[in-house]
Amino acid sequence: MLAEIITIGDEILIGQIVDTNSAFISKELNKIGVQVYQITSIQDDKEHILQALKDAKDHADLVLVTGGLGPTKDDITKHTFCEFFGDTLVQDSETLQNIKDIFLKYLQRDPLPANLEQAMVPSSAIILKNAHGTAPGMWMKKDKTVFVSMPGVPYEMKYMLTNEVLPRVIREFNRPHIYHKTLLTYGMGESSIAKRIEQFENDLPGDIKLAYLPSLGRVRLRLSAKGTDREKIRNRVNEHMSVLYDLLTDIAVGYEEETTIQERISAILERKGYSLSLAESCTGGAIAHEITTIPGASKYFKGSITPYETQQKINILGVPAELVEKHSVVSAQVAEAMANCCRKLFNSDIAVATTGIAGPTKGDGQAEVGTVFIGIATPKGTRVEEYKFGKPRERVIAKTTNKVFELLLKEISKN
Amino acid sequence: MLAEIITIGDEILIGQIVDTNSAFISKELNKIGVQVYQITSIQDDKEHILQALKDAKDHADLVLVTGGLGPTKDDITKHTFCEFFGDTLVQDSETLQNIKDIFLKYLQRDPLPANLEQAMVPSSAIILKNAHGTAPGMWMKKDKTVFVSMPGVPYEMKYMLTNEVLPRVIREFNRPHIYHKTLLTYGMGESSIAKRIEQFENDLPGDIKLAYLPSLGRVRLRLSAKGTDREKIRNRVNEHMSVLYDLLTDIAVGYEEETTIQERISAILERKGYSLSLAESCTGGAIAHEITTIPGASKYFKGSITPYETQQKINILGVPAELVEKHSVVSAQVAEAMANCCRKLFNSDIAVATTGIAGPTKGDGQAEVGTVFIGIATPKGTRVEEYKFGKPRERVIAKTTNKVFELLLKEISKN
Repeated sequence: MLAEIITIGDEILIGQIVDTNSAFISKELNKIGVQVYQITSIQDDKEHILQALKDAKDHADLVLVTGGLGPTKDDITKHTFCEFFGDTLVQDSETLQNIKDIFLKYLQRDPLPANLEQAMVPSSAIILKNAHGTAPGMWMKKDKTVFVSMPGVPYEMKYMLTNEVLPRVIREFNRPHIYHKTLLTYGMGESSIAKRIEQFENDLPGDIKLAYLPSLGRVRLRLSAKGTDREKIRNRVNEHMSVLYDLLTDIAVGYEEETTIQERISAILERKGYSLSLAESCTGGAIAHEITTIPGASKYFKGSITPYETQQKINILGVPAELVEKHSVVSAQVAEAMANCCRKLFNSDIAVATTGIAGPTKGDGQAEVGTVFIGIATPKGTRVEEYKFGKPRERVIAKTTNKVFELLLKEISKN
Repeated sequence: MLAEIITIGDEILIGQIVDTNSAFISKELNKIGVQVYQITSIQDDKEHILQALKDAKDHADLVLVTGGLGPTKDDITKHTFCEFFGDTLVQDSETLQNIKDIFLKYLQRDPLPANLEQAMVPSSAIILKNAHGTAPGMWMKKDKTVFVSMPGVPYEMKYMLTNEVLPRVIREFNRPHIYHKTLLTYGMGESSIAKRIEQFENDLPGDIKLAYLPSLGRVRLRLSAKGTDREKIRNRVNEHMSVLYDLLTDIAVGYEEETTIQERISAILERKGYSLSLAESCTGGAIAHEITTIPGASKYFKGSITPYETQQKINILGVPAELVEKHSVVSAQVAEAMANCCRKLFNSDIAVATTGIAGPTKGDGQAEVGTVFIGIATPKGTRVEEYKFGKPRERVIAKTTNKVFELLLKEISKN
């Protein structure tokens, strides 16, 4: 079966926000065997919405729409759905109660008329409860196509999709199984990988698809298959993946299935009982932020310091001033000292330090923009790696962050 | 004139990556008066790409396509363009040289045949140079519609769009001016705002559009207009915006035009010569990361500490153990002490501290999930605010981060 996602909102089309809803919905649909045929972002405009609904009906069994359900005048999805389905609005008592409850609980006041108007819904719609907001979702059918309308606020949409929409899709549609497995590789470009696995790629059977996903400093290789027998397609993908892995052992760092590299690091640290601390200069908190976003980080993460000013590396972290003087603040020696001092300061098993020039400008007598040193201190010793990450600033920060996760995973995966 | 953006890649439709290219392109087009009619994300599939190109031709003057230009077999955009335009591939000597140069400079080796194949381009295409990668862009025309193909790698695309595509669009198309102005408000819901400004909204002339953009703890209000006279539409929007501002002075924190709240904070700190440090517990580095992403942060940002483990708040930051013992680590007293200790430790003018329970679980005897204290220490004294940010984890972190920027902006904007 095929699905289409339609996200409504002028703010998407003028680039004021990035549409993250579509990726979330696609991922969740994929897990239950629903293939997304197309994602379309359109304006808060009645004619445009009607056209998009009509087009989607031609090629999708399921159309998921987000946005345009707010209490203000620029939100017109509900009225447009009414027109598309030739329906009229009626009051839904459960939704009305939900709105009153939410106002009482979170805002300690009565809803305004505009909020109460959100309880008016198309008479033929099945109402989907919004546990975290006042706009209800709608499930409606036209001929053989199901149309679902959800709020655009990511937090409200996610809850509604997970708890209301997906269980209903599972019940009402026959779906094949889709299985993806993704191998993470670091340190080799996609064309070199393609050359090395050319024979493998040529020999792949038609029902197994290979995709290359290059990003800063790493390439992900995804094998996918679709079929009715869940076990069979899993086995077929896994079989071919293990051949692929063998061809790339020197650059592979593991699989990414449901878990990210950060989650894998988190799981290993917790299992082995290792504690971690960070001294982030050029990454400025980016690594700590990613680590602490994972629930349970407090079990192994002791903390971090961003000694942005050179003096703070000396005062707080304890890097010897002579070392900074002699080698400059962006140097292998200072990265090594930062990692060692950080490990001691936080009393952690492992410490990672970054120092580099993110740019756009470099200080006097410093290394060129994009130069980064990463130090990793463990009970067994301290190693330092040097990189040239080019430009611009965000890219240097992102590449350094990715590289730290790569080095850290390799380090903690050792026996 | 109208534009359509088509992003190609299975990885988008299975939710493996979030499409950030579209937002960037939309924003840039908007600045030069090009309205984006629709954004469509489709699979790496020839028939689907052909259909999307055909559909886009019906309603757009300019179609910008990203993705599918890599050197591997799953990249089929170029061949599909050839089919759509009835064209054949020829070798472009400048592109060939660019590929060789890039390999020599960044990889210190010769390109592979698959890389050299990237120099084959449709014979009627105007070639757009890729300064940061091997895949060239293409500019082609069919009847009255211009089709542009760019790489999907955000970094390569951004450079090509800015340096090759936009200047050409400006030269070749007549465009109206589009002007948006966005007011940032904090602390009031969109329906309450709508009620307060009901009369204003009803009185708005038809050519000025108002949009509400609610997100965690804040609502942005955007006024937009389009026209041929640049000064006139700016003045009209500014006139209405000043009326709107007067209606919302108690919750408005300023305008967001080209700049984000982080950039505004950055500019004020630099202008006033204030230095800043952070002690981030529950936000775990998120605030430092956002601040250090802005170029020039080293001029005012002394550094930060994430004392994730309670003991580190005592050992490194210097919060008295008795205070933690008496009030618990998530308390107004500890937030205050963290801010004061941080200010002292980093010797900064201003220090901000966060402590809270991001969840999903809470420690023994601690406050409920979502409780957050924010402390701000300045030469004039220290204030602490308490918030209940609910769930889930990422939302608590994001809401706290937004709130810190709001408080900080207000604090440093005082005389």
